[in-house]
Amino acid sequence: MAQAIIDKTDLDFVLFEQFEIDRLHEYERFSDYNKKVIEMVVKEARHLAVKELLPTSKIGDEKGCRFENGMVLLPNEFKQVWKLLAEGEWLVPNADPDWGGQGMPRSVALAAKDYLNGANMALTMIGGLSHGAAHVIEAFGTAEQKQLYLEKIISGEWAVTMQITESESGSDLSRITTLAEPCGDGTYRITGSKIFITGGDHNLTDNIVHLVLARIKDAPEGSSGLSLFVVPGVHVDKNGNLGMKNDIACTGIEEKMGLHGSPTCAMSLGSKGNCIGTLLGEENKGLAAMFSMMNDARLLVGSQGHACASSAFLHALDYAQNRIQGTLPQAENGDASGGCMAIIEHPDVKRMLMIMKTYTQGIRSILFYIARCQDKAEVVPDPETRQEYRDLVDFLIPIGKGYVTDRAVEVCDLAIQIFGGYGYTCEYPVEQLYRDVRVTTIYEGTNGIQSLDLLNRKLTLKKGRLFESVIKRIEQTIELAGQREELSDLATAFEKMVSQLKEVVRQLTSLPKTPRNDLKLRSVSVDFLQVTGDVVMAWMLLWRAVTAINLKQKSKNKNRLDLLEGQVCCARFFIKNLGPVTLGRMASILDGSDAVLDIPDGALKNR
Amino acid sequence: MAQAIIDKTDLDFVLFEQFEIDRLHEYERFSDYNKKVIEMVVKEARHLAVKELLPTSKIGDEKGCRFENGMVLLPNEFKQVWKLLAEGEWLVPNADPDWGGQGMPRSVALAAKDYLNGANMALTMIGGLSHGAAHVIEAFGTAEQKQLYLEKIISGEWAVTMQITESESGSDLSRITTLAEPCGDGTYRITGSKIFITGGDHNLTDNIVHLVLARIKDAPEGSSGLSLFVVPGVHVDKNGNLGMKNDIACTGIEEKMGLHGSPTCAMSLGSKGNCIGTLLGEENKGLAAMFSMMNDARLLVGSQGHACASSAFLHALDYAQNRIQGTLPQAENGDASGGCMAIIEHPDVKRMLMIMKTYTQGIRSILFYIARCQDKAEVVPDPETRQEYRDLVDFLIPIGKGYVTDRAVEVCDLAIQIFGGYGYTCEYPVEQLYRDVRVTTIYEGTNGIQSLDLLNRKLTLKKGRLFESVIKRIEQTIELAGQREELSDLATAFEKMVSQLKEVVRQLTSLPKTPRNDLKLRSVSVDFLQVTGDVVMAWMLLWRAVTAINLKQKSKNKNRLDLLEGQVCCARFFIKNLGPVTLGRMASILDGSDAVLDIPDGALKNR
Repeated sequence: MAQAIIDKTDLDFVLFEQFEIDRLHEYERFSDYNKKVIEMVVKEARHLAVKELLPTSKIGDEKGCRFENGMVLLPNEFKQVWKLLAEGEWLVPNADPDWGGQGMPRSVALAAKDYLNGANMALTMIGGLSHGAAHVIEAFGTAEQKQLYLEKIISGEWAVTMQITESESGSDLSRITTLAEPCGDGTYRITGSKIFITGGDHNLTDNIVHLVLARIKDAPEGSSGLSLFVVPGVHVDKNGNLGMKNDIACTGIEEKMGLHGSPTCAMSLGSKGNCIGTLLGEENKGLAAMFSMMNDARLLVGSQGHACASSAFLHALDYAQNRIQGTLPQAENGDASGGCMAIIEHPDVKRMLMIMKTYTQGIRSILFYIARCQDKAEVVPDPETRQEYRDLVDFLIPIGKGYVTDRAVEVCDLAIQIFGGYGYTCEYPVEQLYRDVRVTTIYEGTNGIQSLDLLNRKLTLKKGRLFESVIKRIEQTIELAGQREELSDLATAFEKMVSQLKEVVRQLTSLPKTPRNDLKLRSVSVDFLQVTGDVVMAWMLLWRAVTAINLKQKSKNKNRLDLLEGQVCCARFFIKNLGPVTLGRMASILDGSDAVLDIPDGALKNR
Repeated sequence: MAQAIIDKTDLDFVLFEQFEIDRLHEYERFSDYNKKVIEMVVKEARHLAVKELLPTSKIGDEKGCRFENGMVLLPNEFKQVWKLLAEGEWLVPNADPDWGGQGMPRSVALAAKDYLNGANMALTMIGGLSHGAAHVIEAFGTAEQKQLYLEKIISGEWAVTMQITESESGSDLSRITTLAEPCGDGTYRITGSKIFITGGDHNLTDNIVHLVLARIKDAPEGSSGLSLFVVPGVHVDKNGNLGMKNDIACTGIEEKMGLHGSPTCAMSLGSKGNCIGTLLGEENKGLAAMFSMMNDARLLVGSQGHACASSAFLHALDYAQNRIQGTLPQAENGDASGGCMAIIEHPDVKRMLMIMKTYTQGIRSILFYIARCQDKAEVVPDPETRQEYRDLVDFLIPIGKGYVTDRAVEVCDLAIQIFGGYGYTCEYPVEQLYRDVRVTTIYEGTNGIQSLDLLNRKLTLKKGRLFESVIKRIEQTIELAGQREELSDLATAFEKMVSQLKEVVRQLTSLPKTPRNDLKLRSVSVDFLQVTGDVVMAWMLLWRAVTAINLKQKSKNKNRLDLLEGQVCCARFFIKNLGPVTLGRMASILDGSDAVLDIPDGALKNR
């Protein structure tokens, strides 16, 4: 296969042409990251991903994890790969150099991570939370906590978990019952059970640092009574030496549809009354602290979705060019009757590839745009502009997780369809990708939860200023496109989508606050996520097209010109061929019936 | 769970109220099948399905099939269940009583089959082709072939296969290379390899009768040189006694995403030069004969999709009523803050259930409507009306396979989402349903192939008369709905959809026949299948609503009235909330760009 995991040419287009990530090095903080360095970093990650991680992905799927004698065992091959990830400092490359990180811009780290996630999502998921955990400890930890944990986590010597979910507390964190009682010496004794804990136990590292959401004795009910704790799997003395095992243990692992190489653990905390942890941040303010980690986790899931989609697309593209099947009786190329036609020449197969390519490129741009906003929010001097970048990130996170993974699942589904019967067998990687990617719409907040975050929180924060910031930038792109003859019809069509979205927002936000309207809003939140995501996707694709048209003027190379024309085709396909469906969905939000709310209980529920 | 596989109340509604299947007994041919008998048949099938088949489904998924010493072994539990299917005459219940069948109307057999397919799709798939094979042998076989095979197949004493696909011949049958050489005694010596053969070998029956598509030596190239052969796995003498094994053997089975209990076999025919078969039907006319079996197979796949969707819906509905999670801060019911809220009360969950319910009921009606048309085509006295029913069936088959299974996959996907993290584990049946149902959009002609059948063949047959027949009936339902005050807005909205579909058809069929337009048509065929399917679905749901409104006037029972109101809500939801998306897709067909055709090769293909 000519390309693996990610189309390098398109990644370069996004990094250096659409978003000019190399210009971040104009800021002191990122001054090491000029174009050459970025290219080197991405190249190293790609090599590691393709050569070392990718061959272990199917092994992980087939062998899976085992739970034996109270311990979780991963395939042996994973150990060696984890070592390489740690040695190459790939676990938290954007961490502060003071703690052993490389201070890499997030956008550059994302390029590296996309390759690694696409090569073996199950394995990198185990290290996927290291970044977020380090971030939380750095932001909320005591000097001692930082000293004890940060370097070890950033270096990959120790792994981490995020322990939130309980059997009765999934999307609803207010129901968490894990209890923390003060021991009197500043530590807490923790008791409870957690489920669905990624990497709750494994044999990759000597220690696992668990970040546990629990309720201090006598704390208020609900989510405002939750605190966050650091609970090391193995106790650590003041000098960082490992001591006795802590009283936290895996009691079983889930059998799952996919992601077989990633252990999803049920955990028992304090079954012997002796699980000791320390408070991270303030009492009862655990949720806010956890959420700063959660945002990272959500973008990680977006990256996983993107990597799966991107791989699936490249596999399908490759297969479609090599599988000979069928003829077109009246095809333009006349000679097709010879019966030697690759299936990519069938318009329906090409249509599927076009959706896959357009979605993959669009979500790639969405994720890199978010990462670039995160970078800019850290370095631009003007505080107001910094805040605006943070606002953009906040608004776009539910899209970068929810909308992106919905599209990613769709891309992997189309890959199966292009492979036909072969796609349903385990012979090609698309079967595993289809099963693996399916979890991305569920974990770290289901996409339904993302849609509520977007509609009920992000849209109304600061009187709607977040949405306005996005629209302002969208309109800048429309203006640039409108100035280009080749794109003016797309600019006009997209403007219609945007103005219709504004109408949807106007209508939804001006509904009087009544219980009935609250239900109404919640019944359209997923549709709202879809149409807002579509508009953001169209924006990214039009931005790509504008970039491409500008670059076309500077090139005479046929290959290059074709590639740039491809950017315009994808924007055109999305806006003109898929856009009408988006408009239809907006019309449904605006004028749809309330049948969902009005159906009698007796007609829906069991009798 | 209150209901399993299929909601009995809704099935009764379809059978006796929407389609009045019991009125078929007014015709001599079906005079045994009054309402009481139909209810008894369905009840027996339901009992068998729920008590005997359903418990073996997960066993099949977990144990799968094994290929050992050149033989395929199914889980032991399957043997007993096959015996029950055979004893109960459930394999080909609508076969002619002369050959041991029950002469059951297809619509009644479908109700039974839906339960059985939903209980263990992998197992019933092995017997799923018995009906089609019997039908082909009855229609095209010699007296001897009928005598030898029909009763044994219909009784389930012997199983069958349909052997079409080869490794280089999937969607493209013209590439089949399996060769048949006349032996001189009326038999043929067959040589070749087939793949993806469901039930190519297994230990459920003493013999397997293979229907093999092959090319007689010196026959024309392409699909017009294909002939159909009966190739028994074990030779049969003139008295029906089993003799030596024939030279046809399974060489391996596929590892698949799902349907683990159904062996998908690679077959070798004549590896010792001694695979003997007899011609079925005329030389070089194998394709037409095989297609009369293929239509049956396609409707079987539709039934599988329906059964999976129906099961997934009932599981999700049950879970959503029992899973306590989350609160609505301002919910109408005020007391929700108590934290004891079933997730079905969350509008987004209810929205998903509403889609699942609406789709499941809609596709149920589509499939039973097709079956009823098949029944009527056999019994109504007027030849022209009979032909019209056959036309309706022909037009609707690609929808009953392609559109129905696309919606079925969507329903199973939503079930996973409602179960959240649990849905991704193997703890609940929805995970298996999601993997099992995925094959339905692929086998027996991918849904892309179905869309071409609809657009390039069925739509233009007899100068478009098939489509006109459907539209005529749709307009009758619109008229009835328009007369009901409660439905008049739906009638109006649906009329808009229908007239837009007519415009789409007008535009597509009036394109001048050029190679470019041929490509253009093929690039929108799947969208055309989707919008035509949506219109047929909306028709079925509106028909249900009209039926419900009529029945409401005759009832005062609250439960009954709620149920009937539910029919109206589903029609309303589909037409008003999902209908705008359909209109958007139609607009895309009418005005979309040709980006799929115009993207430069250099931008799409590997470099």
